[in-house]
Amino acid sequence: MKIALAQLNFHIGNFESNTDKIIGAIKDARQKGVDLIVFAELSVCGYPAADFLEFTEFIELCKQSAEKIAKACTGIACIIGLPTVNPKVQGKDLYNSAYFIENGEIRQKIHKALLPNYDVFDEYRYFEPAVDFKCIDFKGQKIALTICEDLWNINDNTMYLESPMDILIHENPVLMINIAASPFNYNHDEERILILGDNCRKYDLPLLYVNQVGAQTEIIFDGGSLVFDREGQLLDEMAYFAEEIKVYEFSGGKIQHYAPVLHDQQNDIKQIHDALVMGIKDYFFKSGFSKAVLGLSGGIDSALVCALAAKALGAENVMAVLMPSEYSTDHSLKDASDLVNNLGCKHEVIPIKEAAITFERMMKPVFKDLPFNIAEENIQARCRAIVVMAMSNKFGYILLNTSNKSECAVGYGTLYGDMAGAVGVLGDVYKTQCYKLAEYINRDHEIIPINTISKPPSAELRPGQKDSDSLPEYDILDKILYQYIELKKSSESIIAQGFDKEMVRNILKMVNSAEFKRKQTPPILRVSPKAFGSGRRMPIVGKYLG
Amino acid sequence: MKIALAQLNFHIGNFESNTDKIIGAIKDARQKGVDLIVFAELSVCGYPAADFLEFTEFIELCKQSAEKIAKACTGIACIIGLPTVNPKVQGKDLYNSAYFIENGEIRQKIHKALLPNYDVFDEYRYFEPAVDFKCIDFKGQKIALTICEDLWNINDNTMYLESPMDILIHENPVLMINIAASPFNYNHDEERILILGDNCRKYDLPLLYVNQVGAQTEIIFDGGSLVFDREGQLLDEMAYFAEEIKVYEFSGGKIQHYAPVLHDQQNDIKQIHDALVMGIKDYFFKSGFSKAVLGLSGGIDSALVCALAAKALGAENVMAVLMPSEYSTDHSLKDASDLVNNLGCKHEVIPIKEAAITFERMMKPVFKDLPFNIAEENIQARCRAIVVMAMSNKFGYILLNTSNKSECAVGYGTLYGDMAGAVGVLGDVYKTQCYKLAEYINRDHEIIPINTISKPPSAELRPGQKDSDSLPEYDILDKILYQYIELKKSSESIIAQGFDKEMVRNILKMVNSAEFKRKQTPPILRVSPKAFGSGRRMPIVGKYLG
Repeated sequence: MKIALAQLNFHIGNFESNTDKIIGAIKDARQKGVDLIVFAELSVCGYPAADFLEFTEFIELCKQSAEKIAKACTGIACIIGLPTVNPKVQGKDLYNSAYFIENGEIRQKIHKALLPNYDVFDEYRYFEPAVDFKCIDFKGQKIALTICEDLWNINDNTMYLESPMDILIHENPVLMINIAASPFNYNHDEERILILGDNCRKYDLPLLYVNQVGAQTEIIFDGGSLVFDREGQLLDEMAYFAEEIKVYEFSGGKIQHYAPVLHDQQNDIKQIHDALVMGIKDYFFKSGFSKAVLGLSGGIDSALVCALAAKALGAENVMAVLMPSEYSTDHSLKDASDLVNNLGCKHEVIPIKEAAITFERMMKPVFKDLPFNIAEENIQARCRAIVVMAMSNKFGYILLNTSNKSECAVGYGTLYGDMAGAVGVLGDVYKTQCYKLAEYINRDHEIIPINTISKPPSAELRPGQKDSDSLPEYDILDKILYQYIELKKSSESIIAQGFDKEMVRNILKMVNSAEFKRKQTPPILRVSPKAFGSGRRMPIVGKYLG
Repeated sequence: MKIALAQLNFHIGNFESNTDKIIGAIKDARQKGVDLIVFAELSVCGYPAADFLEFTEFIELCKQSAEKIAKACTGIACIIGLPTVNPKVQGKDLYNSAYFIENGEIRQKIHKALLPNYDVFDEYRYFEPAVDFKCIDFKGQKIALTICEDLWNINDNTMYLESPMDILIHENPVLMINIAASPFNYNHDEERILILGDNCRKYDLPLLYVNQVGAQTEIIFDGGSLVFDREGQLLDEMAYFAEEIKVYEFSGGKIQHYAPVLHDQQNDIKQIHDALVMGIKDYFFKSGFSKAVLGLSGGIDSALVCALAAKALGAENVMAVLMPSEYSTDHSLKDASDLVNNLGCKHEVIPIKEAAITFERMMKPVFKDLPFNIAEENIQARCRAIVVMAMSNKFGYILLNTSNKSECAVGYGTLYGDMAGAVGVLGDVYKTQCYKLAEYINRDHEIIPINTISKPPSAELRPGQKDSDSLPEYDILDKILYQYIELKKSSESIIAQGFDKEMVRNILKMVNSAEFKRKQTPPILRVSPKAFGSGRRMPIVGKYLG
């Protein structure tokens, strides 16, 4: 039999577009003689639909879409993912389900058992875990259909007490199919291949795995749907960061015409690059906007965001605003202009000196002769935000935020100033990774000016300021941050690695004290295993290490 | 035996302060001849500790605190709440536990079975549900000790499949004790009394219930610990919005010297008032600040916040900044001044006209002759934010946000402008409730000027502007918002109640489209059953009703 895996980019709550896309793929597949086409987890409504799932109207629209899809699904079978109502009175109201549809009818309903509820996941908030399991019957064969996390409870230290496959295997299925919405981080492709291969080996079955692709605000799905033989060897790997539909021949208990392949391992920086480009593109496309604005300082972060936005939206849709102050250096303006020329994007120069002076004059009766300090520094950053937001309000540009993860971590940024924006492009990319990303963007020819990359980082909010005046060098800072944020190490264990005691304590304290700022930042495109945002939920008024 | 209920205000992660408070209460109780003193759920670390729970160092500090408390607990027994390590390899790493401590030793460990994972709750993110249950043994009697949600699975349509009390009852306990961290909303006191009374009736047992009190950023615990007889009749009700320790005599299977009382029902507005005052007070105290700043417009929202802040922090710690623009009316300045005089708080007048003109001049080469619109309106709101944030940065004031729930809902506010602030005081109070709150504050004498209450609401960002130019009247708007936000009704069912079809659709669309703004607002003090913030998680880039 011919089975198609449809790795598609859905839009949360856009039932019309999602249903059209699914029905279109079904029709195409039927023409190609496909027997069964498989769509990803919660394909009907998009993932994560969050608290929309608590609206009965939303669930009703999912049901109506499924009925429409079923009606169109004749002469072929399909598997779709959607939330469904739990008919039992007790327990949560919904299941995270898969429908097996054949000859225009919903033949079988499968429910997810293992509900991820960590990091960015909140599935137990909405869904009741399944306790009954049954294979689907298709053309006289049993297929073990599971949903994403259902296959992740394997090996040591499992998070759940039981695995659905341990039950399903008793029906002697010939194939496993798993439909997923498994978000990207730069480690995740490797993990996924290991875990899924382990399932094949454990249950002695081949596996077809289909993932979502596309960005849903901060959460980015990388696709990379996978095919394994019963020995757990990878037979095929679909596109990363792009839609793709691919047909596989399954017969005689195996996937035909495929020999084991090695995972097409790509370095983390290329993956991050592709994820950010897709993140920007989908943010704009799905929210109905096309043009971006950003403040361009001459520094590396804004240069990176400008280059990524030009890649995602087209240079003609990117407006870079250069906003020199009296503390900006000449080379900064020059570096910013060079970048604009290299990219061919639009730009404006709007100096902010006059505004900063006006505010200092306005505050004089209150500030009197108190010395210049962070108050005046922040006034400059906030004047810049007023300018770019005015551009946004007047012309419909969407403001891109350029703060990097190191800055977000320690609170080195001005709320309502450079921390403004609709979406944070680099908020999950450490400063040291930003340099690598710039090198990657420059891999064929110079796009980001070399001077932007080589000069010491500075916010240029007072004369001669350098980031290293208030922060450790980024190569040390980022290592300590990684230990604390990604690995959740204690201060003691970080110090034991040889870092300065006082420095470690200060940095951890800065991270915790900046929680109130991060609460008010834009959503941050997630590329790491532990990003700021819904995957990291910290008390704002807490005292721990504070 | 004498049992004390200790309703205390803990601070998340502040182990030193929490432990001192618990040990202090134990010593006092021992002096009064108390046999057992009961502290609330997760009293050792505070609630909700959120992802601090994922740090092994944090859990180790909980353990050390518990050991210190145990050592101090001689000649008396106590019950405390803390997270503990799940010794089994499978399942989540932690339990939400209660320790029964006697004679300096941890005698028994009880784990929570029913883990709330809805609205503001994320307990299944951290904790494994208990599956084994045992009463505690104290002075030869069995006590059924449960933790908060464990008693909430009663009556119809339960969320969980089993209730711990159904197991514990087989041991024939003589008393139920429930330790809780049950957050306030203006409906919750009534619900709590009903649910807990139902448990007494179902299991034919008296109940001692101890709740947390105090605010943890946006989540406010109201205290109101309760005592019931075996018929489910309320015998006593401890203080709301205040710490209290109270001793009860339990003997012969009943609470002595108490006759049934009626719940001291207070109207919602008084409760909201007390909650907001505690919310402000604890935000400042727990984050180590004492002085607040806010922009005072002459309108009702900022007047309310100013009055609440003066109540919470003392008028001498509140700085009101009047920032008239060219569109501000004379009566607004007068109303704001009257309020400042009534309260006796500090104030400054800093006109923003000059700054607004400067920005308009700066933008002229780009804006050319495009007409005045929302861009210029927002410039004014953002100039005001620069002024109050400059006050904050220069003098250490914390900015209070004054947006109300109606505005937050429909996105009627300027990001990085009037939506700025460290904490949103009124973000969960609809405009129509704001008027009632003003009346309540004025109950004895005029604090908020009558003119502030009686004039039509206006943002005063262009000549003659009124809120009703762009929004329906608030009494209609708030009703529709309540149906959609609190009750999650569909547009059809709201329209069926007699509201204008076009208006309902527009409002629901505005609510969904403002999600990107709400992502960047300060934490909002939660007083309703459905507040913006962690209890309402919506996709930002979604299409549903959008």
